[in-house]
Amino acid sequence: MMAHDDRSPVTVIGLGLMGSALARVLVKNGHPTTVWNRTAGKADELVSLGATRAATVRDAVAASPTVIVCVTDYPAAYEVLESCGDALSGRHLVHLSTGTPEQAREAAAWAAERGVHYLDGAVMATPSGVGGSEAVLFYSGSEAVFAAEREMLNVLGGATSYLGADHGMASLYDSSLLGVEWGVLSGYFHAFSLVGTEGSKASTFLPVAIQFLRSIEAVFHEVARQVDEGRYPSDEETLEIHLNAMDRLIETSRARGIGVDVPEFFKSIITRAVALGHGADGLPSAFEAVKRPA
Amino acid sequence: MMAHDDRSPVTVIGLGLMGSALARVLVKNGHPTTVWNRTAGKADELVSLGATRAATVRDAVAASPTVIVCVTDYPAAYEVLESCGDALSGRHLVHLSTGTPEQAREAAAWAAERGVHYLDGAVMATPSGVGGSEAVLFYSGSEAVFAAEREMLNVLGGATSYLGADHGMASLYDSSLLGVEWGVLSGYFHAFSLVGTEGSKASTFLPVAIQFLRSIEAVFHEVARQVDEGRYPSDEETLEIHLNAMDRLIETSRARGIGVDVPEFFKSIITRAVALGHGADGLPSAFEAVKRPA
Repeated sequence: MMAHDDRSPVTVIGLGLMGSALARVLVKNGHPTTVWNRTAGKADELVSLGATRAATVRDAVAASPTVIVCVTDYPAAYEVLESCGDALSGRHLVHLSTGTPEQAREAAAWAAERGVHYLDGAVMATPSGVGGSEAVLFYSGSEAVFAAEREMLNVLGGATSYLGADHGMASLYDSSLLGVEWGVLSGYFHAFSLVGTEGSKASTFLPVAIQFLRSIEAVFHEVARQVDEGRYPSDEETLEIHLNAMDRLIETSRARGIGVDVPEFFKSIITRAVALGHGADGLPSAFEAVKRPA
Repeated sequence: MMAHDDRSPVTVIGLGLMGSALARVLVKNGHPTTVWNRTAGKADELVSLGATRAATVRDAVAASPTVIVCVTDYPAAYEVLESCGDALSGRHLVHLSTGTPEQAREAAAWAAERGVHYLDGAVMATPSGVGGSEAVLFYSGSEAVFAAEREMLNVLGGATSYLGADHGMASLYDSSLLGVEWGVLSGYFHAFSLVGTEGSKASTFLPVAIQFLRSIEAVFHEVARQVDEGRYPSDEETLEIHLNAMDRLIETSRARGIGVDVPEFFKSIITRAVALGHGADGLPSAFEAVKRPA
């Protein structure tokens, strides 16, 4: 595809599954795109689409005012970027490798020492989802870089959010959502097991579960509100009621010969919250058990 | 409110929070509604809205061709219903007390012996949500009763589903969704704890989490499909990658002094699935660890 005159040049360093997906979306949207990967062959498909292959990291960085790095981890990013001398100085660095908030903050300090304008980010989409209107990408760090690159970043995902000047926030949200995803998955996996014992398919149950979650979305907003206020008045449901219901779920699961680790774990959370004095409080009070180290 | 001529008479037995909510919605929608509760005073508000108070269970049952029972549990339901002699014979009984699938099947047998047409159900809404367009209610058992009562049942909740002739299915789905709800809650609670260490409010994080879950809804459909097929090809993400990511979440949580039970539990599921040989498989393979008794 031809480059649009008004699209800014971008360099993408690291062409793993995610880096390649990012570069592909940029090329397809008309950004003049320069790519580099340790194994040069990984650039072949992108070059055939219109990307430019750089021979060295230094050449790659020099080719664009904006550099996106997406490699295995933060140590790998330093190793690559330190090989380009001072070529990054004055440029925008958008770092999308996965890491911890602490690593993001260290990288911001590293960039500041070298005169690099640094934005840390996290891609919450699968490689094939990158570029879609629903793809969630988080950024934190330099607001100036985010504002200047906004149009290009929107190309990478329609659900782009800036989380503030603290460089660690994108990574913190990334990690937090991993827990949310596995919470949903573990609930689904147990439910699939249970309905499966009566011949119900997971794909029959799932739409019902999604409909149910949508119907109680208001509850989750109320949960968040109570967590923020640290007060958990019971209205219609208490932890004691849910403790009984969880016992019934465990009994029902055991009677069908499926694993009970998942409901036993949920029971352990509720039990600890009850021990903290929240038995007659509403469900959100179980937050108090989760946040405290055991 | 005046009764509509075309709305069928219904009796509601049991006026706890949920039973009262059901009766209130029926009265407000013009169903001639007769109510009974062990503590008669609980009917006062409903009578003021237009419901009729029955003096005995037998009178309550005799007043309508359709009887809804919503009491504490199944034993309580038998105790109440056996006090009405053969008055239930030939009537439609819609049972919305909470119980196990086994209890629902026993109740169906009990009803069959007495010539009662039995539909078991589960209310997946809070009392205040009953009657709303999004309120999810499940029914299973007599399809004839479901078909005949469809219009009345739709008044109780817009998202009404019939799950088949096996009386236990409504209860089975009810229990299964309890696990899904606590899966989501435990994921949220941990995430709220984590983002809270950096001053982010739960109610700021929640909409981001909901947006993220929506964006990966396609993944959940794919998860269900793979679970049904029992094959878990890895495409873009493997369990090994998520095991590493979970370690990073645990490290990030521990560094901030919050509890790590939730991510440690998710790690234990992934670790067991890896031990079953699924390390290079996709995420849905963790289902195999959840469904097996430890």
